[in-house]
Amino acid sequence: MIEVRDYIHAIGRRARDASRAMALAPTARKNRALTCIAETLEAQGGAILKANAIDLAEGTGLNPALRDRLALDEVRVRAMAEGLRQIAALRDPIGEVTGLCYQPSGIQVGRMRVPLGVIGIIYESRPDVTAEVAGLGLKSGNAVILRGGSEAIRSNRAIAACVHAGLGAAELPLDAVQLIGTTERAAVGELVSLSEYVDVIVPRGGKGLIERVSREARVPVIKHLDGVCHVYVDDRADLDKAVTIAYNARTHRYAVCNAMECLLVAEGIAAQFLGRVGPLYREEGVELRGCAATCGLLPYAVPATAEDWGMEYLAPILAVRVVTGIDEAMDHIRHYGSQHTDAIVTEDLGRAQRFLREVDSSSVMINASTRFADGFQYGLGAEVGISTDKLHARGPVGIEGLTSQKFIVLGDGQIRT
Amino acid sequence: MIEVRDYIHAIGRRARDASRAMALAPTARKNRALTCIAETLEAQGGAILKANAIDLAEGTGLNPALRDRLALDEVRVRAMAEGLRQIAALRDPIGEVTGLCYQPSGIQVGRMRVPLGVIGIIYESRPDVTAEVAGLGLKSGNAVILRGGSEAIRSNRAIAACVHAGLGAAELPLDAVQLIGTTERAAVGELVSLSEYVDVIVPRGGKGLIERVSREARVPVIKHLDGVCHVYVDDRADLDKAVTIAYNARTHRYAVCNAMECLLVAEGIAAQFLGRVGPLYREEGVELRGCAATCGLLPYAVPATAEDWGMEYLAPILAVRVVTGIDEAMDHIRHYGSQHTDAIVTEDLGRAQRFLREVDSSSVMINASTRFADGFQYGLGAEVGISTDKLHARGPVGIEGLTSQKFIVLGDGQIRT
Repeated sequence: MIEVRDYIHAIGRRARDASRAMALAPTARKNRALTCIAETLEAQGGAILKANAIDLAEGTGLNPALRDRLALDEVRVRAMAEGLRQIAALRDPIGEVTGLCYQPSGIQVGRMRVPLGVIGIIYESRPDVTAEVAGLGLKSGNAVILRGGSEAIRSNRAIAACVHAGLGAAELPLDAVQLIGTTERAAVGELVSLSEYVDVIVPRGGKGLIERVSREARVPVIKHLDGVCHVYVDDRADLDKAVTIAYNARTHRYAVCNAMECLLVAEGIAAQFLGRVGPLYREEGVELRGCAATCGLLPYAVPATAEDWGMEYLAPILAVRVVTGIDEAMDHIRHYGSQHTDAIVTEDLGRAQRFLREVDSSSVMINASTRFADGFQYGLGAEVGISTDKLHARGPVGIEGLTSQKFIVLGDGQIRT
Repeated sequence: MIEVRDYIHAIGRRARDASRAMALAPTARKNRALTCIAETLEAQGGAILKANAIDLAEGTGLNPALRDRLALDEVRVRAMAEGLRQIAALRDPIGEVTGLCYQPSGIQVGRMRVPLGVIGIIYESRPDVTAEVAGLGLKSGNAVILRGGSEAIRSNRAIAACVHAGLGAAELPLDAVQLIGTTERAAVGELVSLSEYVDVIVPRGGKGLIERVSREARVPVIKHLDGVCHVYVDDRADLDKAVTIAYNARTHRYAVCNAMECLLVAEGIAAQFLGRVGPLYREEGVELRGCAATCGLLPYAVPATAEDWGMEYLAPILAVRVVTGIDEAMDHIRHYGSQHTDAIVTEDLGRAQRFLREVDSSSVMINASTRFADGFQYGLGAEVGISTDKLHARGPVGIEGLTSQKFIVLGDGQIRT
C-alpha cells in the first residue's frame, strides 16, 4: 500500500509541475501536439490493435457489452485521430478575457479564463477515452492523470505512447498526460484523495465506479450518477414528432445515459399516441411497463411496479405513465428524475416555456430526442463527461468545463479610499 | 443531538420547498420584497438597535474587533437598507439565455441561468450580513439558511423579522430566508451535512470557522481560507504609484482578507522605493519584517523569520522582501501565497501581461491596490464571500456565483440518427 501511495503521489507531483507549463503553453504548440498525436495514432494503428487484441484475449471473463467497448478496430482508431483534429480546430479557451469594464473607482475589472490545473480521469473499458480525454485536457491547458480499467491496460499504454510522442514533438512536458501504470485498486483511492495535487476528478463508467469515487473523494468530482431521462408527450403535441422522438429516445441506443427510460403521456392524447408508438416498441422488442391506464390501452404492456418509476434500465425496457397534463408530468420528473435530461413534445408555446424554465435538469429539451444530450451534438467538440451537479459545470462538460475564471484588475495607480 | 438534527432537517426541507417557488418568482416580486425589506429595516431601526444593545451588553467577553463588527448604529442600519436597494437595482440573472446557436442537426442549443437552490451561510458577529446575504439569495432565486454567531442572535432575529415582512408583502414564501434559532454548535455540523437539502455552504468568518466547515462538510463549500496578498513593485514601476499602492494595500484596513501581507520589491528599485515608503509605514506604526537586504536599507525593520513568508497578519505588520525581479517575485507568490489577490506595480507592458497570465490567484492586479478585491468594487453589487477555490466561482462571489446554467435544446422534432 505504501508503494502505491508513493507512486501516485509522485505522479501527482509531476502532474502539478507539468500543469504550470501547460497553463502557459502557446495555442500553436498545443495544436501541434494534438495534430501530431493524431498522426502517430494512425501510423501506430497496427501496434495499438495488437495491444488491444491481447487485452481482448485475456479478458475472457468480460461480458459482451464490456468487450464491445474494449474492442478497437481501424475505424475506431481513425475516429480517435479525427476527434483529436477536431479538438485542435476548437478555439483555445485559455486567456480569454471577458467583461472588462471600468468601475466608478477607475479600475477596469474583467475575467480571464484559466485552466483548472490537474485533472484525474477514472474510466473503464473504452481505450478511446484515453486519447479523447488527453486531447481535451491538453487543449484546455491542464495536466491529466489517467486511470483506465485493468482490462484495457495494454491498449491504453499503446495509445498513451502516441500521446507522449505528440507532446514531445511539440516540446510540451510528457508529464502533462500520465497513465497510471499499476492496475491495483488502491491506486484509485489514492488518486481521489490527492487534494494537494489534483484539482478535480472525473469518473466515467458504471454507477458502481462513480459511487465509489464520490464516496471516497477528497477532491471535487464532476459526475452524474444516473441518467433517468423522461419524455413528456403533451396533448398539444404534434403526433408525428411525438412518435418519432419517443421511438428514437428509447431505441436508438439502450445502454446510454441520455436514453429515455420513462415516457409520460397526457391523458387527452394517450389513446391516439400510444396506439401509434406502442406497436413500434413491440416490434423492436421493447418491454413496456405501464400504469393502469397504459395497460388498459396497450394489451401487451405489463403493469409497472413502484420500482419502475425512476429506474434506469439501460435495456430494451420502458416505463410508461399516463398523466393529467404538464403539471403532473413535471411533478413526476421532479420526484423520479435524476436531473440529467428531460424533454417535452408540444406545439404549445406557454407549456414549452414553462417546461424549459421549471424542469431542473442539466439538459431540458423541447421537441427533440434526449439522445442529443452530448458534447459533440451540443457543439462543445467533445466531452469528458456529463454533470448533473449544480456547481461549476452542468450537462456535457467540454473544454470550457475544464477551465475556471480569475478576476483581473487593470489600474493606473488606484487605491481604496 | 437528535433534537438539533430534526430541527435542522425540518429547516432544510422547508428551504427546499421554498426554493422551488423562489426559482420561479417573477423579477418584479423579488424586487418588491427587497425594497420592502429596506423600508422595514429603516422603520424598525429602533427595535434593531435595541436588540443589538442587548447582544452587546451580554457579549462582555468579546474582543474589541468582534465588538466592533457586532455593533450596529443608525448609519449601519441605513447602509443595510441601501445595500438591499442596490441589489434590487441589479439585473435579474435568472432565466438569462446565452449562446443559443443552431447545430448541424438542426437543434438550437443554449444555456439558461438558474438558481443553485438552497444556500447555507455560516457567519460570525456581523449582523448586517443577515440582510445582505438574504438579499443576494432572494435576488438570485435561491432559498437561504442563515446561521449567525450566538453573540449576534438578537440582532439577527430582529433583522430576519424585517426580511420576513418584506417576503410576506411580496407574497414570497417566508421559508426562503430562515434563520437558525438555536445557538447550539451541533447545528453547524448538521447543516453542512445536509446534502439532501442544501446545495452549497458559504462560511464567512475566521479561519477556525472555515477550517471546521471545510472539514465537516458533505455539501460543496465556497470559501477562502487565507488572504495572503502580495504586491510586487517592479524596477520599472512608477515610484509614486508604487508608494501610494503599497501604503494603501497595507494600511487602509488591517484585519481584512484583501490587505497586503507581504511586499516584494525588485532590487533595482529597492533603495529608492523603500526609502520613500518605509518612513510612511513607520509613521503609521506598521512593524516591518524584512529580508537581509530590506534590513540593510531600513534600520527600523526587524529581520523576518521563515514563518513570516506566507503569514496572514491581519495586523499592522508587513513582511518585506527584496527579489531579483518578476520571476523571483512570482516564485515567491506561488510558494507562499494563498491564491487570493496579488498585484504588480510596473509600467512595463510585457511584465504586466506575464504577471496577469502567470499568477494563479483569484484576483490578479496591475497598478491597483489589493484592497479592491471586493464584490462592490468589482461591480457585482455585493458578495456572499470570496472564493479561492478553482471550481464554480473564483474571487468575489456575487449573485451570479449563486446561480448555475442548464443546457436548453429547442427542436422541431429532431432525432439522433
